[in-house]
Amino acid sequence: MALPEIFPYIGGEFISTNETYQVHCPWDNSPIAKVHLAGEKELEQAILLAQQAERPMAELAAYEKYEILMQIAHGIKGKRDDFAKTLALEACKPIKLAYGEIDRAIQTFIIAAEEAKRPPAELIRIDWTPQGKGKEGLVKYFPIGLIAGIAPFNFPLNLSVHKIAPAIAAGCPIILKPARSTPLSSLKLAEVVSSTSLPKGALSILPTNREVGNKLVTDPRFALLSFTGSPQVGWKMKSQAGHKRVVLELGGNAGVIVTPSANLEQAVTKCLSGAFAYAGQVCIHTQRIYVHQSVFTAFSEKFIQGAVKLKNGNPLDTDTDISSMIDEENAIRVEEWVNEAVEAGARLLLGGKRQGSFFPPTVLTNTTSSMKVCAQEVFGPVVTLEPYTNFHEAVNLINQSEYGLQAGIFTNQLDEMNFAFNELRVGGVIINDVPTFRVDHMPYGGIKNSGFGREGVKYAMLEMLEPRLLVKNTL
Amino acid sequence: MALPEIFPYIGGEFISTNETYQVHCPWDNSPIAKVHLAGEKELEQAILLAQQAERPMAELAAYEKYEILMQIAHGIKGKRDDFAKTLALEACKPIKLAYGEIDRAIQTFIIAAEEAKRPPAELIRIDWTPQGKGKEGLVKYFPIGLIAGIAPFNFPLNLSVHKIAPAIAAGCPIILKPARSTPLSSLKLAEVVSSTSLPKGALSILPTNREVGNKLVTDPRFALLSFTGSPQVGWKMKSQAGHKRVVLELGGNAGVIVTPSANLEQAVTKCLSGAFAYAGQVCIHTQRIYVHQSVFTAFSEKFIQGAVKLKNGNPLDTDTDISSMIDEENAIRVEEWVNEAVEAGARLLLGGKRQGSFFPPTVLTNTTSSMKVCAQEVFGPVVTLEPYTNFHEAVNLINQSEYGLQAGIFTNQLDEMNFAFNELRVGGVIINDVPTFRVDHMPYGGIKNSGFGREGVKYAMLEMLEPRLLVKNTL
Amino acid sequence: MALPEIFPYIGGEFISTNETYQVHCPWDNSPIAKVHLAGEKELEQAILLAQQAERPMAELAAYEKYEILMQIAHGIKGKRDDFAKTLALEACKPIKLAYGEIDRAIQTFIIAAEEAKRPPAELIRIDWTPQGKGKEGLVKYFPIGLIAGIAPFNFPLNLSVHKIAPAIAAGCPIILKPARSTPLSSLKLAEVVSSTSLPKGALSILPTNREVGNKLVTDPRFALLSFTGSPQVGWKMKSQAGHKRVVLELGGNAGVIVTPSANLEQAVTKCLSGAFAYAGQVCIHTQRIYVHQSVFTAFSEKFIQGAVKLKNGNPLDTDTDISSMIDEENAIRVEEWVNEAVEAGARLLLGGKRQGSFFPPTVLTNTTSSMKVCAQEVFGPVVTLEPYTNFHEAVNLINQSEYGLQAGIFTNQLDEMNFAFNELRVGGVIINDVPTFRVDHMPYGGIKNSGFGREGVKYAMLEMLEPRLLVKNTL
Amino acid sequence: MALPEIFPYIGGEFISTNETYQVHCPWDNSPIAKVHLAGEKELEQAILLAQQAERPMAELAAYEKYEILMQIAHGIKGKRDDFAKTLALEACKPIKLAYGEIDRAIQTFIIAAEEAKRPPAELIRIDWTPQGKGKEGLVKYFPIGLIAGIAPFNFPLNLSVHKIAPAIAAGCPIILKPARSTPLSSLKLAEVVSSTSLPKGALSILPTNREVGNKLVTDPRFALLSFTGSPQVGWKMKSQAGHKRVVLELGGNAGVIVTPSANLEQAVTKCLSGAFAYAGQVCIHTQRIYVHQSVFTAFSEKFIQGAVKLKNGNPLDTDTDISSMIDEENAIRVEEWVNEAVEAGARLLLGGKRQGSFFPPTVLTNTTSSMKVCAQEVFGPVVTLEPYTNFHEAVNLINQSEYGLQAGIFTNQLDEMNFAFNELRVGGVIINDVPTFRVDHMPYGGIKNSGFGREGVKYAMLEMLEPRLLVKNTL
Repeated sequence: MALPEIFPYIGGEFISTNETYQVHCPWDNSPIAKVHLAGEKELEQAILLAQQAERPMAELAAYEKYEILMQIAHGIKGKRDDFAKTLALEACKPIKLAYGEIDRAIQTFIIAAEEAKRPPAELIRIDWTPQGKGKEGLVKYFPIGLIAGIAPFNFPLNLSVHKIAPAIAAGCPIILKPARSTPLSSLKLAEVVSSTSLPKGALSILPTNREVGNKLVTDPRFALLSFTGSPQVGWKMKSQAGHKRVVLELGGNAGVIVTPSANLEQAVTKCLSGAFAYAGQVCIHTQRIYVHQSVFTAFSEKFIQGAVKLKNGNPLDTDTDISSMIDEENAIRVEEWVNEAVEAGARLLLGGKRQGSFFPPTVLTNTTSSMKVCAQEVFGPVVTLEPYTNFHEAVNLINQSEYGLQAGIFTNQLDEMNFAFNELRVGGVIINDVPTFRVDHMPYGGIKNSGFGREGVKYAMLEMLEPRLLVKNTL
Repeated sequence: MALPEIFPYIGGEFISTNETYQVHCPWDNSPIAKVHLAGEKELEQAILLAQQAERPMAELAAYEKYEILMQIAHGIKGKRDDFAKTLALEACKPIKLAYGEIDRAIQTFIIAAEEAKRPPAELIRIDWTPQGKGKEGLVKYFPIGLIAGIAPFNFPLNLSVHKIAPAIAAGCPIILKPARSTPLSSLKLAEVVSSTSLPKGALSILPTNREVGNKLVTDPRFALLSFTGSPQVGWKMKSQAGHKRVVLELGGNAGVIVTPSANLEQAVTKCLSGAFAYAGQVCIHTQRIYVHQSVFTAFSEKFIQGAVKLKNGNPLDTDTDISSMIDEENAIRVEEWVNEAVEAGARLLLGGKRQGSFFPPTVLTNTTSSMKVCAQEVFGPVVTLEPYTNFHEAVNLINQSEYGLQAGIFTNQLDEMNFAFNELRVGGVIINDVPTFRVDHMPYGGIKNSGFGREGVKYAMLEMLEPRLLVKNTL
Repeated sequence: MALPEIFPYIGGEFISTNETYQVHCPWDNSPIAKVHLAGEKELEQAILLAQQAERPMAELAAYEKYEILMQIAHGIKGKRDDFAKTLALEACKPIKLAYGEIDRAIQTFIIAAEEAKRPPAELIRIDWTPQGKGKEGLVKYFPIGLIAGIAPFNFPLNLSVHKIAPAIAAGCPIILKPARSTPLSSLKLAEVVSSTSLPKGALSILPTNREVGNKLVTDPRFALLSFTGSPQVGWKMKSQAGHKRVVLELGGNAGVIVTPSANLEQAVTKCLSGAFAYAGQVCIHTQRIYVHQSVFTAFSEKFIQGAVKLKNGNPLDTDTDISSMIDEENAIRVEEWVNEAVEAGARLLLGGKRQGSFFPPTVLTNTTSSMKVCAQEVFGPVVTLEPYTNFHEAVNLINQSEYGLQAGIFTNQLDEMNFAFNELRVGGVIINDVPTFRVDHMPYGGIKNSGFGREGVKYAMLEMLEPRLLVKNTL
Repeated sequence: MALPEIFPYIGGEFISTNETYQVHCPWDNSPIAKVHLAGEKELEQAILLAQQAERPMAELAAYEKYEILMQIAHGIKGKRDDFAKTLALEACKPIKLAYGEIDRAIQTFIIAAEEAKRPPAELIRIDWTPQGKGKEGLVKYFPIGLIAGIAPFNFPLNLSVHKIAPAIAAGCPIILKPARSTPLSSLKLAEVVSSTSLPKGALSILPTNREVGNKLVTDPRFALLSFTGSPQVGWKMKSQAGHKRVVLELGGNAGVIVTPSANLEQAVTKCLSGAFAYAGQVCIHTQRIYVHQSVFTAFSEKFIQGAVKLKNGNPLDTDTDISSMIDEENAIRVEEWVNEAVEAGARLLLGGKRQGSFFPPTVLTNTTSSMKVCAQEVFGPVVTLEPYTNFHEAVNLINQSEYGLQAGIFTNQLDEMNFAFNELRVGGVIINDVPTFRVDHMPYGGIKNSGFGREGVKYAMLEMLEPRLLVKNTL
């Protein structure tokens, strides 16, 4: 059977190009699609169409944006199985998690539909001094212009949607570059979008090579670059971005603290999910677990028991909990980091041995904060488990990281909650859940090396809007 | 020496009338001033002047309101000792508490000055449906009109200020009736106000008899009645108020819960203050203390030890903690309630014996919820102390009251805080402090029999403003 | 054919009673349904079920409310034709307007679904003075309790929905009494609601006689009375309402000003709709039109030309613009008012002669402000047309009314817009549209005799919620 | 008489260094102070002290910030004459304008004092989907860390204050580099600050050479660079700033439109001020005036008449309207641009001839948009005056600029106001006033080449704060 051919979506059309590559499913390396790459010419065309779409986008009434966004939400819902299967195959994401991502993408569009009706605005008295007598001020927010979005492989649909949906709600055209390994679900989204009344040109989705992709960073016609990916790449982009705004959603090595007042069953269940869901290839993957010494043994035992039960397998099997990593290169890297840790004195409580691109749930203890598995972003199904004696110290351990995305605290104590929230240098502190918790309307993003700016529909929209003050003199 | 004569303040002037009465200091019953009562004629004049002031008030720029309110704040500060002494004498309030009230009144004016620059306002997209295309909406808030304020005896300055300062900030003229027993500090305030550029007519302060005072309730020229006083009087006013809005700040029998995770020293200290400050004549007086059985004995002992040390005496003495009640009638009533409770099985741990209008710090235990000292508002230095075993039950005991003003919970547990906040049917839940806690910018007011509407400058202003929508069709 | 029997909806069930009456279509007086009246027993049962529903309603998550409200919206949409026909018949509302009302009711539920996810909330720093050091405050809004709603005949569906939808979004059970003449569409709504997962008891819809209906006003178990109807009835209810809150949406005699800078075609078209749609039986009916003398003749001619073209007829005909009034009694009253005006010197430019319960589009000029057709709420297809010379005077004429609901200004001048917005004592000023303009999410309500409080989903919700402050001491 | 010696202010101390330079008054080139330059060592010390101040600053209660900021405001007020004279001399700013700047600086501190009590915060329902059930979210804003501020010469006090006051209100330490030519008033401010209880280290003010100053841009220990100055310098800094945030307040060539419905007297008066105040050395200097042809002649005549009357002279004379430019170099540049324009066909209506560093009020017409006096930022007392026929065209002319700071429109027409606000690509549109209008609490900043981010106390604070989300799971 011939491989399906997948085309870049350029301002309302799917365009054939003369450069193609194959996308494979990481589970068995089987080819699943032949993708046409957009080159410089196609990018230029997408930019011109986007510029033409600026005014029609800016002039959409709230109800028109609402309808377009809800049409997209319903369109995805209508092809839910198809989307889930595509996603499972391209990203090697267990199908039950793939369905979760599809449902979140639908929800992200619904949120954007509602937020399109509620843009920020502010009314300001100007007459705080005699100079302002008789004047009043009004701040409205206008679309900033053309957006460049770059999406990662790990949530190929919903992290694209987190750029596309706010752009539509804000009234900005957007050109999105999906990850090379996972362009299929976002291009399936393009099909849904193409059947709505979104002005043509307002959305292009372009798989490109790195060189062409870099124009999204440097081309001055873009007003904002919204990038989700690795810190190394992201921070370099910031310095190359010229006048444009930059939003960076980068990685982390998120930590969680389990205190004696926690509900231990709840903590174990949630930590298992945070540590191993999608093989840990999640920006807010639970990488470091600090457990109070009084409950450390109990927690460890339950945690290992739970981890052992996770079922690995084909991403399309409905009972698969964990499947292959995105590629063997990453599995090899993770294996090396684990081995390095063990050689340096860490103790392996579970897992650690790679099979091809599959890496099993792996638990380490006796680690030190300089080991890569602690200090860097492991982006694999590896977690460290360490006892602590003093809560403030545990908070300090989480802070001893160049990253600061999210953190989790299992506690029933007010003083611990307050201390953690005040002291943790992260974007989000989750009480009685893992740092891996995210819903799509909450503000999301990291500090330190973990990022710059925020996503989460309303917050992403703010980055895509520019304030304009009107001062009326009524005298 | 002749008694000072005190005159009603009518639209910028102090006016002599032909009906007078003496104000006495409750401590020794000595006369401290001869007060001229405003009659119907004076009220009518105040109303006419207030109506004339409506437009000038409505037209004040934000900075003009700010300046007037800050001038008043500085004016009080400049006469701080004078104000404190006046207040101590008229209300029999220990001078150190009187200074506290003066400082809060200053703060209330500063808050109002700042809030005058930040009135509510809202910008609304109208185009949520095709009917609204091209339209946008703007909500501004305009002064509602003439305000009638009725103030109680217990915070004769600051509770008057909580009506006057927001009225000025909102741009509304106000006529205030102070309590019969304590008109002096509010009329001293009138002196300060009269030296500012507040439009004349915008403030009148009228000591009146009950009959004339009732016109503040029934006269249709007032747009709002803001009453602080007893529930019986307040609720009756609501039904007589005609078209006008009504804000009622009534009483309560506030409860507090001390859990095992509480800081016991902190809880005792704060409960002593909540229970006995100003002889309990405080709307949010701490009347019922529920202590977990595991710490009940420890708490009780420390509490009684602390209560015993409270120094009673002349309100002008700087080390006086507790002085006479506002009048002997009330002291007698409190004594009767305590006696009734004891006869019905309550146990007296401290106090209970009246001396004239002085009633000592009194602690009861073994009470039942139907006793007046539990069920009604004691408004005296009486507190009940009861053990509990189950937190939910303790919350339930607080709710078993016709009142719902504030409640306090001493706890370090998140689940207790959440449960209390979700379940307590009160206006405010104070964690790790007594229900008696109030700062002047927080929203303040009760539900159930305890009140209707909110004070706390910004919130009081909202009651004094009416929204007006502007819809602009830009097509 | 037997008349359909229609039953009160009591806490999830349709209940047969032993008192019934017939509902007729005003157009031809034909009976269209036999309605069972709820008596005291049924009301009592509805109240008990509502009380039982209080906690389940309060505990609904945002997404659960959202789903219920969207299910209702979709449910109405699915029976759009059926709803429109029912509404057209019971209210004698031309079917094209009936469809408009159905679509607005759907929209009102969608708005409520979205607002259920966005309740008001506030975070307050408490540390503005040393007393507040280490404390912070949080205000959340909790359901106020049981709501009583009383709806009018003129928008029997959407004005019921404006009470029901916010109640669900706020988490409050509601008992609604429809108008005696138009209970059918709201009871059809009950069918839709009964198939959703709304907790049983949370909604009852009870046609009652006046005596039973009055319990909705006086029964202390209701926390809020939301009444839409006549001023006489409404203001009396306020004084009988006891402790409960009251929202009154009453009538008006809305005015519009057409200035020389207006787009005259636009003004005529919109004024025709404002004056005659649904035979003027609209709270914000355009009753008084003031036109600048320089364009008065041109406006009048076009307006009469347009009015003449309005087609009267059977409400079910799709080209009917105007049909019978709700009953002959009202048509007679309107005829008397017109005759009185003419006798007192007004000149009839169009209409004026009643046929049974049909009253034709009627235009008067040379009126004086004391005539009933100017001063009172005509609630019929009658409009006065007067020239003015000075804009400020025209604004003043609109203000010379005991009512203050909405006003319209057709102008392209900033100074006129500002003057009108600052000076008009109404709830809403509509620039370049008639006062009859309303979309369902905007704040809506009058001042002076026109009402008390606001509707418009978010604003109606605020009336149904009580604030509760949490102060956390973190020291 | 010996020159006063002025020292860098480093974390609470004035430090002598071994590199000095003289500051001269541009009017007569007389030396007015000998300033010690901070070198690398001093900068390093300032950074270390600032880092030590991070925690004490973060822990200040709202009332403590309020008090510090109000102390500074009062401190400046107490030395108002001294400040004004210093400012007039160093910047060659006419003393009456210097007093205006001092008063604005006082106001900026007062605003910051009030905003310190009102930081942003948000409460978010998390339960929009089943995943969020039982959770709620809270966003608080924390100080971002160490701020680097670079201030320009033209408002040496108030534009420094616009960085310092928000930093204190936000709880961030700040190191400020004043302009080389005008360090005196900001170092006088340091004296005032040093006598308050601001934690030492929280403010350093360092005159440095360019090389040392550049460390403020590149040093990774700064979390934010806030720069006010030229576009060339500013945009280069953005690419060198590394991970830090950047706020750029750059220049403009602001335009104003005078329509036929404008009040001509008002327009002339305000345009004279906008064009010539402080010799046009203002970021929002009114540089381009477009007047409708029907009033062009009238406007021009009045404008020239007004300009002729402006009195030039010594900045210390109270009747001086215009004095020397900041240095001869700039006066020469402005003269060259004017000459170039004239050579290319522009007509000189007034002025144009330089005397040393004094450049007179200069009016050009017949200019084209490519001339430097139109296209670039003239930053001198030069204005172009051109007729227009079509309003949309005039708006378009303003937009034909690489800058986009503010614009002014004199009009009484709603459609013109709406069109201008929707279409002008600027940070602020001022109706019936010049683009030069600014009050210190309004959001201020440009788009396109004019800047990045916003100042205006509350808005500047937002750039200095980072959001942190708390999600509480209450199940």
